[in-house]
Amino acid sequence: MRVAYSLSDLLAIVGPAEVRGTTALAVTGLASLETARAGDLSFLGNPRYKTQVPESQATVILLPTDYVGEPRLGQVFVLLANPSVALAAVCTRIEQRLWPRPAPGIHPSAVVAPDAVVAASATIGPLCVVESGAQIGERAHLQAQVFVGQGVRIGDECWLQPGVHVSAECTLHARVRLQPGVVVGSDGFGYEFVRGRHEKVPQVGGVIIESDVEVGANSTIDRARFSQTVIGEGTKIDNLVQVAHNVVIGKHCILCAQVGVAGSSTLGDYVILGGQAGVSGHVKIGRGVKAGARAGLTTDLEAGGFVSGMPALPHMLEQRLTILRKRLPELFRRFDALEAAVTELKKSSSA
Amino acid sequence: MRVAYSLSDLLAIVGPAEVRGTTALAVTGLASLETARAGDLSFLGNPRYKTQVPESQATVILLPTDYVGEPRLGQVFVLLANPSVALAAVCTRIEQRLWPRPAPGIHPSAVVAPDAVVAASATIGPLCVVESGAQIGERAHLQAQVFVGQGVRIGDECWLQPGVHVSAECTLHARVRLQPGVVVGSDGFGYEFVRGRHEKVPQVGGVIIESDVEVGANSTIDRARFSQTVIGEGTKIDNLVQVAHNVVIGKHCILCAQVGVAGSSTLGDYVILGGQAGVSGHVKIGRGVKAGARAGLTTDLEAGGFVSGMPALPHMLEQRLTILRKRLPELFRRFDALEAAVTELKKSSSA
Amino acid sequence: MRVAYSLSDLLAIVGPAEVRGTTALAVTGLASLETARAGDLSFLGNPRYKTQVPESQATVILLPTDYVGEPRLGQVFVLLANPSVALAAVCTRIEQRLWPRPAPGIHPSAVVAPDAVVAASATIGPLCVVESGAQIGERAHLQAQVFVGQGVRIGDECWLQPGVHVSAECTLHARVRLQPGVVVGSDGFGYEFVRGRHEKVPQVGGVIIESDVEVGANSTIDRARFSQTVIGEGTKIDNLVQVAHNVVIGKHCILCAQVGVAGSSTLGDYVILGGQAGVSGHVKIGRGVKAGARAGLTTDLEAGGFVSGMPALPHMLEQRLTILRKRLPELFRRFDALEAAVTELKKSSSA
Repeated sequence: MRVAYSLSDLLAIVGPAEVRGTTALAVTGLASLETARAGDLSFLGNPRYKTQVPESQATVILLPTDYVGEPRLGQVFVLLANPSVALAAVCTRIEQRLWPRPAPGIHPSAVVAPDAVVAASATIGPLCVVESGAQIGERAHLQAQVFVGQGVRIGDECWLQPGVHVSAECTLHARVRLQPGVVVGSDGFGYEFVRGRHEKVPQVGGVIIESDVEVGANSTIDRARFSQTVIGEGTKIDNLVQVAHNVVIGKHCILCAQVGVAGSSTLGDYVILGGQAGVSGHVKIGRGVKAGARAGLTTDLEAGGFVSGMPALPHMLEQRLTILRKRLPELFRRFDALEAAVTELKKSSSA
Repeated sequence: MRVAYSLSDLLAIVGPAEVRGTTALAVTGLASLETARAGDLSFLGNPRYKTQVPESQATVILLPTDYVGEPRLGQVFVLLANPSVALAAVCTRIEQRLWPRPAPGIHPSAVVAPDAVVAASATIGPLCVVESGAQIGERAHLQAQVFVGQGVRIGDECWLQPGVHVSAECTLHARVRLQPGVVVGSDGFGYEFVRGRHEKVPQVGGVIIESDVEVGANSTIDRARFSQTVIGEGTKIDNLVQVAHNVVIGKHCILCAQVGVAGSSTLGDYVILGGQAGVSGHVKIGRGVKAGARAGLTTDLEAGGFVSGMPALPHMLEQRLTILRKRLPELFRRFDALEAAVTELKKSSSA
Repeated sequence: MRVAYSLSDLLAIVGPAEVRGTTALAVTGLASLETARAGDLSFLGNPRYKTQVPESQATVILLPTDYVGEPRLGQVFVLLANPSVALAAVCTRIEQRLWPRPAPGIHPSAVVAPDAVVAASATIGPLCVVESGAQIGERAHLQAQVFVGQGVRIGDECWLQPGVHVSAECTLHARVRLQPGVVVGSDGFGYEFVRGRHEKVPQVGGVIIESDVEVGANSTIDRARFSQTVIGEGTKIDNLVQVAHNVVIGKHCILCAQVGVAGSSTLGDYVILGGQAGVSGHVKIGRGVKAGARAGLTTDLEAGGFVSGMPALPHMLEQRLTILRKRLPELFRRFDALEAAVTELKKSSSA
């Protein structure tokens, strides 16, 4: 985002306890202490980076009130109780400019079925398609080139970014945010093998995405065979994640990029899956389970564990096995030596 | 799918041998015995769930004719030769409502090149693009926001769901079904390293997708360098799968979600690849090979094997190695003890 | 691509040193020596396939000048200094027909904000959306159904294929080529855990894609938290790759399909990551590091190494460990035998 905040604009946003130095430069960017250049705003969020402050080229630096030191010429130190909170306030302000509240209404290029029910406060952007019987909630935003199928229900304040596809009869509760290219309600992957061919098992269930869920770019969530695939309230899903049919994901889970969850598995609340992790079909992952990147969860797991590896094991064990594996060459060498020693002993004892 | 079948509607669909009980409730959903609630239809497909029948809250339950037991008040037991087949009949009926046969014709918002040949029975939905020289077969359905490039041939009864992209000169035979976001005919990934830069190797081949293939949401199939990437008849591909240039996949294969097949590899007929599995470039996988989830197929494999692990090994061996790996801590401990014992023996023997 | 080159057309393109034989057939396809059929052009690029020449069914074969042998009836041998270069010349000619230079201008179905700046030589294809303040460079090509958000800058001669989405305030330098379905500028995946919920950390940075970068179908590149995610000049990214927020990728890197790079990591120039490899967050991968398929790069790596495995180790070590792992059954057996022998020795020595 290209911004241009004067020093006084900035001070009005963050409400500082103290200001040291002054500058005529506008703040036009944000950067870390190390990478900041003239015109950038930076901040000291973690005391262990304190030594980077005197070196930083940032024009404005947000610092804790107990920070000792003076800015260079043309640089400004802004002292406040919590620099991270102040930075967040600036970011929120920028966010409002990055994503301005769209005007309500239906863009003339959108194709909306006559019997779709669109709230007056909703925005249907250019080149969207809304099929028969769909319902679009208050202040919902279909940004551009979005597809909403027959009978879909989009809750209040949902935000569907460009190129999102929500297939027939799926349901989104309130404030769901779908990044570009997300597919909700594609067919589950189910076939029966009949006379040498894979015959399709009809996938006539749906998908329910509860409130405050976010789904990352190009992720896919399949419709259930005949019940519902469910993503629980507050769960956050990263990019290129696959959620198969009949999966039930609990509330406030985190699924990092490229995770895959196979059919009919369930995740309890607060489960965290690292990037590229996978969950086999028909397993139950307990509440609060944490899985490392690339972990392969192939069996039911009790609540609260931390697993890694493929197939996943308790993380401490997996780490130990990883270390011991590296010692295999040494073990084989020592073993050969020991075997030779024993042969020698046998010889001498039988002598 | 929201449905409302009266009991008599349902009985007309399934043709029962016997009906026990009655209900005034309409059937508005389908669910497993365990999760069903009032208004749901359920079924006993597998005898081992028989004990769930008396507990089930389903309003209507499809049961085998030899089932012994009576429904509760307001519940109906429908007995028939094969409850799974009966359920499938209901699902097929629901499927027809979920995906009603679209009216033929070209939506006024679609952009179709004057020299594209569109069958009179085909449907080109809203905001589709069909480029010059493309051919769209009988009863083919481009649902919405689909892109069909120059010279593409779409066979009879193909179904391209919203946001599908088929790039120039690719060919789909009959009844191919592409889920939302599928990309067919993206460039193969080929470069030559010349004077410190990766120079593009032109990718001027195509993709042929044979009849009855299905491809899952957001999967990608690259065009060949100069011949054809081929997906064999009846093969089913799940979501987020990558098929690289010049790959030839046999007939009736199954590629689960997030599988990747690298360039120029070939898969025989009836190959099954578990989720997140990968196939290296330039290898030949024999007919009927089965690979577990996350398997890494790095070499040619003879027909009929079952492999897992990375790099993939025969499944039984991989399982054994997985178990022995877990015993490494014990082995190291025992080894230390044994080494100490031998040292002791050596000492006493030299004494 | 369906082509039809007469023999004389072909000879005009490749400029042969010598021609043996003649044919009345047009060349309508390209294929390898082994798979070529009548009407195909083929070539001998690598001397080790020389024995395939006499068997080849190709109508025209490009051969090195020192090739000894005569074509069969109706077949033509075209001899030249470098058959691979000649083939590339033919491919380039085909490529020009596959991707004809589009006429400049804005398609009437595109939705372009009045204050977007579109170069007169640029092409905005059907059903594209270009938002407020966006800048589209000379000869840039937005093919169809492309989304370009507010304030985006698209450099000269960029090519955005159908269904590409570039989100607000991102920047593409010159000649960037994005395959269908690519998402640039989706939100970074950042949350703070506050009172049992994941609160969104605003992602207000951008993405900079430098010149001559290519990105494969359905890959995703997240915007930075508040600085810039950067893809360095000349880097090539395959399909279904995930690049997280704040990642900085050097120049001339290769990221194969389904790779994932987690947040804030940096890759030096000329890094190569094999298919399905992953890079953890906040690590630095040195210049020229090469990682095998499915490698998991979990720590900083010095320049120039070749690693594989998960967690990644030096490739030679990883290979050795893979071999020793396969010998675990033998090691356990030998160990049991050795333990028994030592027990025996102890018994006899204490006797």
